[in-house]
Amino acid sequence: MPSPPPHILFILGGARSGKSRYAQQRAEQLEGDLVYIATAQAWDDEMTARIARHQDDRGPRWATLEAPLALAAAIDAEGRSGRALLIDCLTLWASNLIFAERDAEAETVRLLDALRGAPCPVILVSNEVGLGIVPDNALARRFRDVAGIINQAVAAAADEAVFIAAGLPIKLK
Amino acid sequence: MPSPPPHILFILGGARSGKSRYAQQRAEQLEGDLVYIATAQAWDDEMTARIARHQDDRGPRWATLEAPLALAAAIDAEGRSGRALLIDCLTLWASNLIFAERDAEAETVRLLDALRGAPCPVILVSNEVGLGIVPDNALARRFRDVAGIINQAVAAAADEAVFIAAGLPIKLK
Amino acid sequence: MPSPPPHILFILGGARSGKSRYAQQRAEQLEGDLVYIATAQAWDDEMTARIARHQDDRGPRWATLEAPLALAAAIDAEGRSGRALLIDCLTLWASNLIFAERDAEAETVRLLDALRGAPCPVILVSNEVGLGIVPDNALARRFRDVAGIINQAVAAAADEAVFIAAGLPIKLK
Repeated sequence: MPSPPPHILFILGGARSGKSRYAQQRAEQLEGDLVYIATAQAWDDEMTARIARHQDDRGPRWATLEAPLALAAAIDAEGRSGRALLIDCLTLWASNLIFAERDAEAETVRLLDALRGAPCPVILVSNEVGLGIVPDNALARRFRDVAGIINQAVAAAADEAVFIAAGLPIKLK
Repeated sequence: MPSPPPHILFILGGARSGKSRYAQQRAEQLEGDLVYIATAQAWDDEMTARIARHQDDRGPRWATLEAPLALAAAIDAEGRSGRALLIDCLTLWASNLIFAERDAEAETVRLLDALRGAPCPVILVSNEVGLGIVPDNALARRFRDVAGIINQAVAAAADEAVFIAAGLPIKLK
Repeated sequence: MPSPPPHILFILGGARSGKSRYAQQRAEQLEGDLVYIATAQAWDDEMTARIARHQDDRGPRWATLEAPLALAAAIDAEGRSGRALLIDCLTLWASNLIFAERDAEAETVRLLDALRGAPCPVILVSNEVGLGIVPDNALARRFRDVAGIINQAVAAAADEAVFIAAGLPIKLK
């Protein structure tokens, strides 16, 4: 059985690695109600189906909130309730920032400030996307850079960090 | 020197990570004859050359069997001999299932049943394919999903699981 | 604080994983002057900017040398000074070898000989590029094969090897 999360828990993994399920299990070790903060936006039918499936998988303890861009504000607002927050995932957030032409560096500073000030446990899920061949197009390379820089920053700020492979955790810190 | 395998050993790694070599070393720690169950099919000259090279690398202790689709049946049939089985690899099997329009979920349930019922050690090799940029085309994304779900299921059923990077194992369980 | 490097330290990681920063920190734990051996060539503005940024990040203890192809010769020549060497990175070297139509296998043997004969600590950084979907084109697959084979060979020769994810090390050996 996974143990309860520390103040800031960072969970990194690949697509279909079981990272969201692991994050949910860690959150559900905690007492009280829980808030799922989704960064996903339903661009197409594939994504709509995936979001709906994930919502069905979670039980009545969970409230769900969408925060495709204003993640720091969502942490500030929801953290006041004292409920633990699960943010899934930072990679989609990175993608949303790029498409909205926001300053990813400044937004990451805001995210780190919100995390450090949060009066509740926060679990953050992110994708590792830098372990394949260099992408052909410049936008994909920029996305990969932004995602990697966010991952490093949040991992450095985390109390605990794990890498998930095939559903199983490897301790990073 | 790697130690002998437990009943079910799951070996996950990238392309050219040394995962097949590691699997072979673990198998050869065992007494008696060994069965190599290949899921590869020789689609082209590149693949034909790779299969032939791998066969040459293995010695006379090894029998080789091809099971591109009917993996559970091969485990049932070959396991009766008591010889240890090395299945290489589950990712190609996932790809074969998709191209043959089989129900990957049902086939995975059959695989897990065969693994649990096997009276012999079984070593399974698989690729991690979910740590790069999201693929452009829907078929590649579906393949990535199926491969990841199979990896999680087999890792959960395994007695031991390792992630191989640059030929070296990281313990998953 | 990371500890000083052993004779040969191999650092593997993804794009934007923090592997170069980790390598630099490990090198700077050592006494005396340091040599940064870059395999990068400035093909375009994106790369030129990245190289300049990395040079600015390093301090006055560092000399910088470019060795896009003749890596073994650079180790032989620079190692005589007794200064520790940081080679960044083997993946670009693999790419350079392929574009220059050199024999990557023979060059890797030369690299290993130079590493074993070096009278100084050597830190080598490399990318893991084999954990995504199989690339569409044959050249990318060949690059992935060569990079993976070099990574395995250097990891086998290393006294210490780590995998970096989100800036944090996982021990390989």
